[in-house]
Amino acid sequence: MGDPAGVGPEICLDLLADEAVSSYCVPIVFGDRAVLESCAEKTGKPIPTSFCDEHEIKSVRVPSVFQIDSIGLNDFEPGVINAATGRAAYTYITKAIDIALAGSVGGVTTAPINKEALSRAGISQPGHTEIFAERCGSERYCMMLTSEIITCSLVTIHVGYDQVPGMLTKERILEVIELTRDAMTRIRGREPRLVVCGLNPHAGEHGLFGNREEEEIILPAIEAARRSGATVEGPLPPDTAFLKGRRAETDAYVCMYHDQGLIPLKALAFDEAINTTLGLPIVRTSVDHGTALDIAWQGKANCQSLIEAVRLAAQMSPSPE
Amino acid sequence: MGDPAGVGPEICLDLLADEAVSSYCVPIVFGDRAVLESCAEKTGKPIPTSFCDEHEIKSVRVPSVFQIDSIGLNDFEPGVINAATGRAAYTYITKAIDIALAGSVGGVTTAPINKEALSRAGISQPGHTEIFAERCGSERYCMMLTSEIITCSLVTIHVGYDQVPGMLTKERILEVIELTRDAMTRIRGREPRLVVCGLNPHAGEHGLFGNREEEEIILPAIEAARRSGATVEGPLPPDTAFLKGRRAETDAYVCMYHDQGLIPLKALAFDEAINTTLGLPIVRTSVDHGTALDIAWQGKANCQSLIEAVRLAAQMSPSPE
Repeated sequence: MGDPAGVGPEICLDLLADEAVSSYCVPIVFGDRAVLESCAEKTGKPIPTSFCDEHEIKSVRVPSVFQIDSIGLNDFEPGVINAATGRAAYTYITKAIDIALAGSVGGVTTAPINKEALSRAGISQPGHTEIFAERCGSERYCMMLTSEIITCSLVTIHVGYDQVPGMLTKERILEVIELTRDAMTRIRGREPRLVVCGLNPHAGEHGLFGNREEEEIILPAIEAARRSGATVEGPLPPDTAFLKGRRAETDAYVCMYHDQGLIPLKALAFDEAINTTLGLPIVRTSVDHGTALDIAWQGKANCQSLIEAVRLAAQMSPSPE
Repeated sequence: MGDPAGVGPEICLDLLADEAVSSYCVPIVFGDRAVLESCAEKTGKPIPTSFCDEHEIKSVRVPSVFQIDSIGLNDFEPGVINAATGRAAYTYITKAIDIALAGSVGGVTTAPINKEALSRAGISQPGHTEIFAERCGSERYCMMLTSEIITCSLVTIHVGYDQVPGMLTKERILEVIELTRDAMTRIRGREPRLVVCGLNPHAGEHGLFGNREEEEIILPAIEAARRSGATVEGPLPPDTAFLKGRRAETDAYVCMYHDQGLIPLKALAFDEAINTTLGLPIVRTSVDHGTALDIAWQGKANCQSLIEAVRLAAQMSPSPE
């Protein structure tokens, strides 16, 4: 359900009522029943009618709410985050992870949370990705953002600009190539065509710019991936890697740093991109927008990104037992 | 005319023959007459009919060739660069710069050259921008790429990824903001709306990532620019700075490094972008494509980018004496 004070509750109400979603999965919202009901009243959206708990969840066949009692209506105001909303969001997430690890759901899609609220609640992880990795005990994972027109995986994520070169290793880049290849094979149903970007302008232009990261770190990772059968090109000059013609023949890009992947992705496909964490023992996707506090609980939020994230999770999930 | 072995000669022949171009300026191609004539024969394009030299140039009123005798037809093959073609290209450029500095032309537009050919000819500068800056004695200059839908100026250009943070100073960023403001005022005919990007993911998120470059270096430059009347926002998170809605209300972006500006620019407007050097005593624009050796002298090259670059130079030029 995401942060109770944000747009999470209302887009979850839309999700539960969406007939198309019910045709390819059974959506179950992990959240507070009272919050959802109050939000439904305030926004005029349908009030949830089916509820479940840990024992009933595996037999649920209709869109439902997994009831968690974590925040009272008097503990927060819509549009205003605080420690209590951060704590509640964290509780929904960890509960959903545990249920997914137990095999009771096919995957988890996360609604928006707020980093400041999390931090005020004393949660040390900066975001969803890190919470999932830690709770699942995964050391080998990466973030991928995917849309119809462009998909990017990130070798490094939330670190300062100047920390990136020191974090690039052949092993890490190979890991991200392999995780991306595996995920895109499931999504596309065939061997994907991958592109790996260089780090420096013009991919270093044969050592003219930078410290030969392309020749010494990135290329060896690409060659190792090719030896195991992957279709990978690179390291390409980052500025021409995302040209229209190149995009048309690329299923996914492996990017060295946050903005190298997210600048073109958001410029080209902001409303459609879905965030997914690869390498976890469970499927995890996420909306790619924030809590939008300025329009929360007003019925204005668009649920399309959440629906797309759920669709991708269903696509990537193993078949139900 | 650019490198004689590339697509420069044929697109210059198209330029000379273009009636629309002649309606807003008098195009003068600096190059070898014999090369242009041979290229015209081979590609079936119109053979130039008007020629001039240093003494006649100010009275030229029709599209003409400024005849330079720098390479023989036996010294090179179309599609194959060598030291002689690099040397010839360098000669055209420096002659055009000198003539422009003397006030005999309103601006200079450069056709594609090849870095490797330049280097084989013993030219130390890596590209046009540096040749212009050195010959004009300019220490305060920057590269800007502009198109209808997106314009980016660069604080740093052809340096390794890891050198960027050390090159950022309040003074340099303010300089690029001011040069960009001045150029866009001339191009748009009004005060432009500028956006300055941060360096780190999420613009550092209040010091969470990076070394507070946003607070300590970039913001003070923005505040100084505002004090002199500029309309500037930032430092913005780089990944959301280029969203569609934001682009619609931004005349130009000031970017901290090569790929921060060129990734979105090329992804969104590859065929239309024009490269211009700001801060020189003369106007300088350039096509934004290379020598395209694989299709050189075959009549296949598209002259649109050159024509757009000439149009921009005419727009930015002072009125003729």
